[in-house]
Amino acid sequence: MKKIQLAEDLQFSQIVHGHWRLAEWDLSPEELLSLMERCIEAGITTFDHADIYGNYMCEELFGQALALKPSLREDIQIVTKCGIKLISENRPHHTIKSYDTSKEHIIASAENSLKKMNTEYVDVLLIHRPDPFMDPAETAEAFHILRKEGKVRHFGVSNFTPKQMEMLQNEYNGPLVTNQIELSVLHEQPFFDGTINHLQKEKVRPMAWSPLAGGRLFKGNDEKSVRVKKALEKVARETEASSIDEVAYAWLLKHPSQIMPIVGSGKMNRIEAAVNAANLPLTREQWFYILQESMGKEVD
Amino acid sequence: MKKIQLAEDLQFSQIVHGHWRLAEWDLSPEELLSLMERCIEAGITTFDHADIYGNYMCEELFGQALALKPSLREDIQIVTKCGIKLISENRPHHTIKSYDTSKEHIIASAENSLKKMNTEYVDVLLIHRPDPFMDPAETAEAFHILRKEGKVRHFGVSNFTPKQMEMLQNEYNGPLVTNQIELSVLHEQPFFDGTINHLQKEKVRPMAWSPLAGGRLFKGNDEKSVRVKKALEKVARETEASSIDEVAYAWLLKHPSQIMPIVGSGKMNRIEAAVNAANLPLTREQWFYILQESMGKEVD
Amino acid sequence: MKKIQLAEDLQFSQIVHGHWRLAEWDLSPEELLSLMERCIEAGITTFDHADIYGNYMCEELFGQALALKPSLREDIQIVTKCGIKLISENRPHHTIKSYDTSKEHIIASAENSLKKMNTEYVDVLLIHRPDPFMDPAETAEAFHILRKEGKVRHFGVSNFTPKQMEMLQNEYNGPLVTNQIELSVLHEQPFFDGTINHLQKEKVRPMAWSPLAGGRLFKGNDEKSVRVKKALEKVARETEASSIDEVAYAWLLKHPSQIMPIVGSGKMNRIEAAVNAANLPLTREQWFYILQESMGKEVD
Repeated sequence: MKKIQLAEDLQFSQIVHGHWRLAEWDLSPEELLSLMERCIEAGITTFDHADIYGNYMCEELFGQALALKPSLREDIQIVTKCGIKLISENRPHHTIKSYDTSKEHIIASAENSLKKMNTEYVDVLLIHRPDPFMDPAETAEAFHILRKEGKVRHFGVSNFTPKQMEMLQNEYNGPLVTNQIELSVLHEQPFFDGTINHLQKEKVRPMAWSPLAGGRLFKGNDEKSVRVKKALEKVARETEASSIDEVAYAWLLKHPSQIMPIVGSGKMNRIEAAVNAANLPLTREQWFYILQESMGKEVD
Repeated sequence: MKKIQLAEDLQFSQIVHGHWRLAEWDLSPEELLSLMERCIEAGITTFDHADIYGNYMCEELFGQALALKPSLREDIQIVTKCGIKLISENRPHHTIKSYDTSKEHIIASAENSLKKMNTEYVDVLLIHRPDPFMDPAETAEAFHILRKEGKVRHFGVSNFTPKQMEMLQNEYNGPLVTNQIELSVLHEQPFFDGTINHLQKEKVRPMAWSPLAGGRLFKGNDEKSVRVKKALEKVARETEASSIDEVAYAWLLKHPSQIMPIVGSGKMNRIEAAVNAANLPLTREQWFYILQESMGKEVD
Repeated sequence: MKKIQLAEDLQFSQIVHGHWRLAEWDLSPEELLSLMERCIEAGITTFDHADIYGNYMCEELFGQALALKPSLREDIQIVTKCGIKLISENRPHHTIKSYDTSKEHIIASAENSLKKMNTEYVDVLLIHRPDPFMDPAETAEAFHILRKEGKVRHFGVSNFTPKQMEMLQNEYNGPLVTNQIELSVLHEQPFFDGTINHLQKEKVRPMAWSPLAGGRLFKGNDEKSVRVKKALEKVARETEASSIDEVAYAWLLKHPSQIMPIVGSGKMNRIEAAVNAANLPLTREQWFYILQESMGKEVD
């Protein structure tokens, strides 16, 4: 498994295991620990969370597994996020879905994540969504405090535009180490709207959420989904890939910006498709063929 | 009244009195002077003009009032604008509505503004609209000359995109101290299209024109206006605001980018709604509730 | 003919002769040489090519003419492009229209261009289209090698957004000397979408392809074409221009960003319209009148 250098002292596995749907997998702590160990054996050492995942429950499930084998902590990298406030019976004081990137909320959210996950630090904390009410100086101050206290090693963002990143980077005195964005064969816009160009320029490595378009790739009946699925099937035959998943992952892995797809499955065989994708011999023309079917037209 | 620091040697009152419709208020010079004095007592010391306001007549009406009490000049800050050429009986040589950011036009326009307003300098001169025919080096040269001659203390822009600001800033050797943009509960796009992010990054403070959406907030029958008005009414009840104006102003004043709303009313009670808004205890959730109703959907 | 300074050691004639349709002109090498000499007499010393023009044939036709009088080489500037791969009987191994900005392809394409054109160097090599699969460090490496070997003096881009230019410029240690974009009285968007602002800021001079909108200006029946044609006719009468071509070229030449229109005609009288345009006394108001008819509305 290729390692991606996010900062001088931080490496992720290129494939990241995403715990977005962890609560739905219905695993005991022992079963989750076992799944994580199999991931690690396969080279996947980075795990992606957010405070809000599973209605604020996933971090705790992860923490219960980690508590069974605390020594695992030093072999893995943990990403979590903050900044969204959901309406939830677990947060009864929230009256509306909103964002909060105040110093107070970021620090409280991060500290709560540490407690839930049974860890003394997270490797990377992301601001989950760009907050139109952000005071970037205040947000950066929260970062400086959490870093100084050893609670968070590095910071990043998610779903940010270049301008939003620049605004926050201008106040934060360390590197923003990633921008976690939606990116897949069905969501190719970031290759054209400046998002990926900006990250390439700044040498910030993107994480890709929904790298399989959240199942739409398999079940979607819309024109684009059907067209792209056919293209992936054709390339799968040409490359002898074992599934279209593998081709969809390879399409991301092959890109020079060093994209890290987040695999959100609890099944080891689905996870392995991503791992195997790294070795798929995808040609430049095959990459453009998939892009063409995604755009619904030839390149200009 | 909070003061906003626009440059080392320049402060505005956060609420600005806008003289866009001054000609319609039908005030004698004495009455206008009296209105201005009441504004100043309420803490509003900054007055916003443009050469073209009132069909090129507003600056002169202002000048007649100021001439009654020239000592007022040192207590106030005057903003005016140039760069638009209107078809008008007062400019019979104009054959089309166009922009002009040539050195010659900017200097002539600024000098004419000084004469009309009975003042020896303006505090800030803005380029009224981004001119697709701008030569930024030439525009900056006009700024350098006007500043050196003491006719204009500082410069800024209005309705500029980030790219347009960067282009001009790159040539002008002082700070562009503001970007006066349309911004309100009915015109929330600048919070999403990079305009506000860019200003926050550069620590340039925005002025907001049409902060009440030019009356559409009160009389608009379109879906968005009706929805937002309801939201403002709800928040007015919750916060015990005396009017929805107050909530609409507070929504801008509360934002960390230090927005300066331009109040364009000639009636003191309407102006006071803006002054009072500064003390309205608007919560972050109320801010997002108004944003949600403005966007017509939850945040992502 | 005005010269445009693209780099310390590089000047173009402001009017560029474009050989996009050279294969259709059906000229013998002698006839093409004669046309080029007439261009040079008229002050047009810069010639624009691409590897793919005329189904990969135009560079060779040009080379045959140049071979008749090799001494011409030092009097002219040659631009060519690379990075697009067309499906063509001349490139039987291409299976799809795609982009390729790999080191290998750029160097091979440039070397092939030199051979075809019977020249030892080109003045400027452009990346023809922004490649969503670009590795900017690799592309820049190809530039560094070609420059070191004396095969290409300078590099630029075509159809790039500001973000795409910044990404590549960040890796290339010389100046990107131009961005060749579509720009005309029927394609005015680059004046508003940041493309021209960015070039003005960076002092990069734009080349304009399809400066007459590819004939649509003369034959177009759509509302915009009809409206703009009428406007050009009116301004032609006012300025005593000999044709609407001349006004359309003057509209570009007059702009402060120092636009270099690429004239794609094989007929000397059409080429002369562009040459004459430089002397057309177009006023600022006439410029805005044409813009207004292009946009279909007054400026704001």
